[in-house]
Amino acid sequence: MIKLANSERLDKHLNVFSTFTATPDKGMTRYSYSPEDVKTRNYIKEKMQEYGLTVNEDGLGNIFGKLEGTLPNAPSVLVGSHFDSVPNGGNFDGPAGVIAGLEVAALFQEQNIKPAFPLEVVAMIEEEGSRFGSGVMGSLGINGLISEEDCHTIQDKDGISVVEAMNQAGLDPTLPRHRDPKTMKAFLELHIEQGPILEEENITIGVVDKIVGLTQLLVTVEGKAGHAGTTPMDRRSDALITASTIISEIPKLAIDEGNDTVITVGQLHVYPNGANVIPDKVVFTIDLRSGSEASIERVMQNVEALIHSQKKEGIKTSIQQQFYIEPKSLSKEIRSIFTTAAEKIGTSSIPISSGAGHDAMVFSDYTEAGMIFIPSKDGLSHCPEEWSDIEHLSQGVDILFETVKQLTAND
Amino acid sequence: MIKLANSERLDKHLNVFSTFTATPDKGMTRYSYSPEDVKTRNYIKEKMQEYGLTVNEDGLGNIFGKLEGTLPNAPSVLVGSHFDSVPNGGNFDGPAGVIAGLEVAALFQEQNIKPAFPLEVVAMIEEEGSRFGSGVMGSLGINGLISEEDCHTIQDKDGISVVEAMNQAGLDPTLPRHRDPKTMKAFLELHIEQGPILEEENITIGVVDKIVGLTQLLVTVEGKAGHAGTTPMDRRSDALITASTIISEIPKLAIDEGNDTVITVGQLHVYPNGANVIPDKVVFTIDLRSGSEASIERVMQNVEALIHSQKKEGIKTSIQQQFYIEPKSLSKEIRSIFTTAAEKIGTSSIPISSGAGHDAMVFSDYTEAGMIFIPSKDGLSHCPEEWSDIEHLSQGVDILFETVKQLTAND
Repeated sequence: MIKLANSERLDKHLNVFSTFTATPDKGMTRYSYSPEDVKTRNYIKEKMQEYGLTVNEDGLGNIFGKLEGTLPNAPSVLVGSHFDSVPNGGNFDGPAGVIAGLEVAALFQEQNIKPAFPLEVVAMIEEEGSRFGSGVMGSLGINGLISEEDCHTIQDKDGISVVEAMNQAGLDPTLPRHRDPKTMKAFLELHIEQGPILEEENITIGVVDKIVGLTQLLVTVEGKAGHAGTTPMDRRSDALITASTIISEIPKLAIDEGNDTVITVGQLHVYPNGANVIPDKVVFTIDLRSGSEASIERVMQNVEALIHSQKKEGIKTSIQQQFYIEPKSLSKEIRSIFTTAAEKIGTSSIPISSGAGHDAMVFSDYTEAGMIFIPSKDGLSHCPEEWSDIEHLSQGVDILFETVKQLTAND
Repeated sequence: MIKLANSERLDKHLNVFSTFTATPDKGMTRYSYSPEDVKTRNYIKEKMQEYGLTVNEDGLGNIFGKLEGTLPNAPSVLVGSHFDSVPNGGNFDGPAGVIAGLEVAALFQEQNIKPAFPLEVVAMIEEEGSRFGSGVMGSLGINGLISEEDCHTIQDKDGISVVEAMNQAGLDPTLPRHRDPKTMKAFLELHIEQGPILEEENITIGVVDKIVGLTQLLVTVEGKAGHAGTTPMDRRSDALITASTIISEIPKLAIDEGNDTVITVGQLHVYPNGANVIPDKVVFTIDLRSGSEASIERVMQNVEALIHSQKKEGIKTSIQQQFYIEPKSLSKEIRSIFTTAAEKIGTSSIPISSGAGHDAMVFSDYTEAGMIFIPSKDGLSHCPEEWSDIEHLSQGVDILFETVKQLTAND
């Protein structure tokens, strides 16, 4: 097996990234534009410079480190991922791909490669949507899907807008965000699988063929507050009882649909949330994913029917679709380069579908997008136990490096 | 009808209290030791002094305004209520009784009454338990049921202890808390009914005969976190699905029991609470009340059976009883004085049970305790719409005044 990437360097980067958490000893919590974001950002920019890249940030705080190519005005090959996290998540979801991008740049520097097309290492914000509620915000912005107005109206739970949060973090929201697709030749992303398949099959690399479609709904149930001791049971309009009845029936909708459809209520807030007050409002998210567009549509209809069936005197319900992303196939050409590169360096690989949304899925509408997975221990992700083997990461970097070399060469 | 209390003065106090909220235009939110507590506290102390009372605070921040009696070392007649609130509650629950106490003192001053036994107006903290999780903390402290250790270990949701919160508010937690029962002759409390009965029956005063028993449980459901997109439905241990199934069945337990038993899940927290993370922990409260001790016990057993029935592979459940307060009968002697006073001033009254817990219930184990209710508009409480008629409050004060006069006289 050929070995190019420096495992010790990868390990060091991972360890440094892991220290930038708002919840030490309770996993990784790194919200966009938080103090932890700023520390990570500074480290990324420092390393980009060390590896000979020219650093730029855009009007959303996405970071680009560019190695110029020899061809004038040629489009770049982008490689990277995101560096935000879910609350109390793991150290690999996102950073593994950012660090892989840095290592590709380090290898270009060490081997003194002068590419024809520019190489750009990318580190993106808010892929998880943990601060501002909807995911892949960094790649949406790069691809022109976040407007000036959005930056003012999209707020976190404390009512702080993207612009305000960026200003608080010392970032510049007035910089350009949207990148002309003509400036991009390809986008490549390495990510952890976040599922059990590679580990179970004892395979090192998953070459992603498609990314499942994903929709997120925001459900609001409104009732009437009242005193827990003095309101008879038959006069209550308890928003939490109605919400609980709905939520308890939700998993069945995905199980009945089959087709690898998954559905999750991950976030829920009760108002006013006092032990002796009947709740007058509950707001919760529904995350629904499937490789089949028809399955997503059918389950969405069944979700709506379920929620409407719980309407009654004194209870109002409403559903807002936060976003919908259709299932996406990734670049056939890049998949083939990945597979050939894996064979060349002697690493096992299989085609795999992604059950999670990724920035690559947004890029796939604007440029050739490719993605590889490395195994996740016990299939776990979005939890402190999330873990991947540094040697698997190292082999993933080797495949990325071979692919970037080929895509940036003058063909 | 005889009229003693000054309705304008009562109205003015209520209006001033109503401005000290953390949620302007969204009801009353006044947590213990918050900036709103401090503003209210200063106003109460100022008025106590204005009405000729000597002001003291105890080691929990309860406020006492004392008019000395002519008998040496005689026990006091206490009159008052609490001044904290639930989140987004109303302006009357608590303050009505504090302001009634102030008005009794104002009438003593205006009529130049020299009591034999001292009169003490009391304004208590944390009756609702909205900050520190368990209610009637002020009266528990006065009656020796909050230890020095408790003040360090009881914490709010941000991990701030009672002692720390008091220090932050500029209060002195080293002052004595426990009051010798020998220093108390009686405790009287005026409160809003928080239910529909007085309004429906067109009666001005409810003379409380008993206070329902009350228990609060804290239920924890633990599962396993995972990524919402990559964890197949049949491999999930979703804490929120289990919690929702339990909660949706909770009301039936009280309805089946009957006997005016009520049960409420008012507070619920999901962890980690990210839209794309399967919840690994849900913690929620159960508030259970009944006039019958046997009903409370039976429903508690059924709650436990329900929760245990939801245990399964990957899901752990636990129940903690936060507190239990048995149903309490109030002083027969004071009830009779209230009723006679109502007749004397020409106000309608009926005996009534209290569905809510109150500080009077804690005092009833240590001194003669009496309580009167005034009507609540539409029976609403713990919400911004909570409202009572100032004339009803005024008539309640007249009855309190007559009763305090009688109890402080040398008989």
